[in-house]
Amino acid sequence: MLFSQATYIERRRQLRDLVGDGIILLFGNNNSPMNYPNNGYKFRQDSSFLYFTGQHREGLTLAIDCNSGKEILFGDEVSIDDIVWYGKVKSAAEMAEESGIAELRPYGRLADLVAEAKGRTIHYLPPYRHENMIEIMNLLGIKPEEQKAHSSVTLIKAIVKLRSIKSEEEIAELERAAAIGYKMHTTAMKLATLPGMTEAYISGVIEGIACSLGSNISFGNIVTMHGEIMHGCPSPVVLEPGRLLLVDAGAETFEHYCSDNTRTMPISGKFTQKQRDIVQIVADCHDLALTFAKPGLRWYDTHMAVCRLMTERLKDLGLMKGNTDDAVAAGAHAMFMPHGLGHMMGMDVHDMEGLGQNYVGYDDTIQPSSQFGLASLRFARKLEVGHVITDEPGIYFIPDLIDDWQRNGTNADFICFDKVNEYRDFGGVRIEDDVLITPDGCRFLGEDRIPYHPADVEEFIAKSKE
Amino acid sequence: MLFSQATYIERRRQLRDLVGDGIILLFGNNNSPMNYPNNGYKFRQDSSFLYFTGQHREGLTLAIDCNSGKEILFGDEVSIDDIVWYGKVKSAAEMAEESGIAELRPYGRLADLVAEAKGRTIHYLPPYRHENMIEIMNLLGIKPEEQKAHSSVTLIKAIVKLRSIKSEEEIAELERAAAIGYKMHTTAMKLATLPGMTEAYISGVIEGIACSLGSNISFGNIVTMHGEIMHGCPSPVVLEPGRLLLVDAGAETFEHYCSDNTRTMPISGKFTQKQRDIVQIVADCHDLALTFAKPGLRWYDTHMAVCRLMTERLKDLGLMKGNTDDAVAAGAHAMFMPHGLGHMMGMDVHDMEGLGQNYVGYDDTIQPSSQFGLASLRFARKLEVGHVITDEPGIYFIPDLIDDWQRNGTNADFICFDKVNEYRDFGGVRIEDDVLITPDGCRFLGEDRIPYHPADVEEFIAKSKE
Repeated sequence: MLFSQATYIERRRQLRDLVGDGIILLFGNNNSPMNYPNNGYKFRQDSSFLYFTGQHREGLTLAIDCNSGKEILFGDEVSIDDIVWYGKVKSAAEMAEESGIAELRPYGRLADLVAEAKGRTIHYLPPYRHENMIEIMNLLGIKPEEQKAHSSVTLIKAIVKLRSIKSEEEIAELERAAAIGYKMHTTAMKLATLPGMTEAYISGVIEGIACSLGSNISFGNIVTMHGEIMHGCPSPVVLEPGRLLLVDAGAETFEHYCSDNTRTMPISGKFTQKQRDIVQIVADCHDLALTFAKPGLRWYDTHMAVCRLMTERLKDLGLMKGNTDDAVAAGAHAMFMPHGLGHMMGMDVHDMEGLGQNYVGYDDTIQPSSQFGLASLRFARKLEVGHVITDEPGIYFIPDLIDDWQRNGTNADFICFDKVNEYRDFGGVRIEDDVLITPDGCRFLGEDRIPYHPADVEEFIAKSKE
Repeated sequence: MLFSQATYIERRRQLRDLVGDGIILLFGNNNSPMNYPNNGYKFRQDSSFLYFTGQHREGLTLAIDCNSGKEILFGDEVSIDDIVWYGKVKSAAEMAEESGIAELRPYGRLADLVAEAKGRTIHYLPPYRHENMIEIMNLLGIKPEEQKAHSSVTLIKAIVKLRSIKSEEEIAELERAAAIGYKMHTTAMKLATLPGMTEAYISGVIEGIACSLGSNISFGNIVTMHGEIMHGCPSPVVLEPGRLLLVDAGAETFEHYCSDNTRTMPISGKFTQKQRDIVQIVADCHDLALTFAKPGLRWYDTHMAVCRLMTERLKDLGLMKGNTDDAVAAGAHAMFMPHGLGHMMGMDVHDMEGLGQNYVGYDDTIQPSSQFGLASLRFARKLEVGHVITDEPGIYFIPDLIDDWQRNGTNADFICFDKVNEYRDFGGVRIEDDVLITPDGCRFLGEDRIPYHPADVEEFIAKSKE
């Protein structure tokens, strides 16, 4: 367990109070088979289960009776065969005791609890693991495709409220993740300019860093010469001098707190003037967010301020035209940045995304938009001390999107298509760091800053060759 | 696609002929969510689907009508949104054409095919991915817990027959996996003797090698000072000079052919006499398998020959006693080696284990045993040219098992418990390589041999420090 027993007991007390009535079932994760039943992917506990119990074992479900306050951990004990094959591990009873959960019952008795609860509300979260969908179907008689609709909004809102504010202890763990992220990204930067490197090779090396210093990567690495593809898969082709390499990657600590950073570097070691112009805009947008965000303002306001600056600067380059406020209101800049400025981060790299993005990112001060680009803003709501959000502006030249807009005349008053077409093969640039909202404003997580200003990136690469 | 279109067409023709009647449904794998729906584990195609189509995309199912010979790929086309987020990829139509599958239909129409097939046999493999269990439930109306029982033994046997014999092209790919395995294990050997190393760190580094040179590790790394635990998880504790480190790990190529090797190395760089004695026995058992196995003999016979040699040598050390043949027949040696000599290997590291181990490892010349130890022999049947099997003898001192046998007097006629108890804290030793059955006998896969004889291991470590 990462934190003290008292921390977990207090979290569950708050959860019980917020939900108020009924029985909460928190399903832990199980083995996720890769290519046959006994060859599973690396075990990853569910973040909410972990947040309230601190336990990393598969085969566990926590039941909390909000009315009586009774807590029961359901899980089976280990056998002598388990010991021969997997070694001595904490018993289920020891786990319950460690987490301060009064009662342990064999997993099979979970069905009895559900039967006894007839007529009472059973709160569960939207499932995402298919084995838990089958379990919920068997327990509650709800078909997999209907389970999300029947999940408990009360429980979702309570958990979002608690997990959104990161404690000092949690921030310390996020800083540990950031330190691994620093190692990953600076290594990628050093490798990118070596001859014969491939996207896939660099991706594998930085995955190894995440796995050796933490538990795993926090999401599938994006390592691509095609930065204009939002989630480009690393390919085994050799890097081409002259192009940019975009690396978007993060680590999870052993306790599953995440890092998430992006850097865009010149494969030749030096940016061309065209590249430097674009990278400098993105770097300035990145810095603007840091001076802008503070408690009480909305992240939406930060996003819009960044979009305005980006539009201004794209006008300077002759890529956009017209009135900046009108262009941003029309969403014209979204041809260059079709995503939002950031998302919440914590135990999940898109924190609590599985509970419903709108519960996490929106509140009564701001509702989701349907406008292209803005619709992809995952986090918009009023900032509070302890929020952790990614700051990740980007500028992309997506040939299919450019053609689509030009053909349809979309935002033709604001886009200089002739000039834009000179950048068709440019690729894309994104810079991303993780921001903690503090009483005074905000700060980046991570003691060491991975270089991102064009001159700093070039200097770092040059030094790495000395 | 790894091989030519003709290869995949021919494989499907053979499959159709072997099954003979009815409709075969081969389900491809899908996104396997890690901690929320859109954060999946690294995509891994199902091995059988890949074997018959060569295609790595999620969301595909292949239908083969054995009577008409008709083949249909079910899969959906990509949208403009997909292109923005994931880049240009092969269309479903292009995949069907590349694989030589005449027809492509949208995924949603798979249900129509099933409806039209009413009364005919539908062959499917035992599912292991829970999303495919839900799919089969929705398509065929069979509950997840009953699906394995309703899966097609005819289809299983046909696929086992085809996939068991590795072609020259497949062996070339297995050699590529072996080369990655060499790099992983020699790196672990170099790292193990450095000060301050942890199991988890070494595990992460070699995972990085698998990911940078191939697609992934072929199974969860075993990197442990407690080699006596069969599947010990790498822990973050610092390695202790004087102990042994057991590393059991493998890689998958981009096309998902595997390697699987184990080495046991001295953290101090030099084995103690006690360690050297045990490691030498295991190395000799390892070598014996290589000189023994050949087409026509059973792998069971190899296993038994190794058990006899191990018993002889453990008698020399005073750990066992009595008549060797009687001891082996009684399974007394299984206190030291509670597992089988090896398993089939190929596109799955335990090849086709998900189809049913007994179909893969047993035939009419040999049936599974229920004796402790022998019951864990995954592969026993008559050897054929093109079989690839792991050769992995081991000797372990498992305190819980020793105590259990001593308390119950199990095989007390053959075990010298007093002497054994002097080894309680010894740990465990395993040596593993992958063996190809050739017309003349067999050979190890992998051009470069990872050192395993005690003197070679020590020499390798000493050289790495120069």
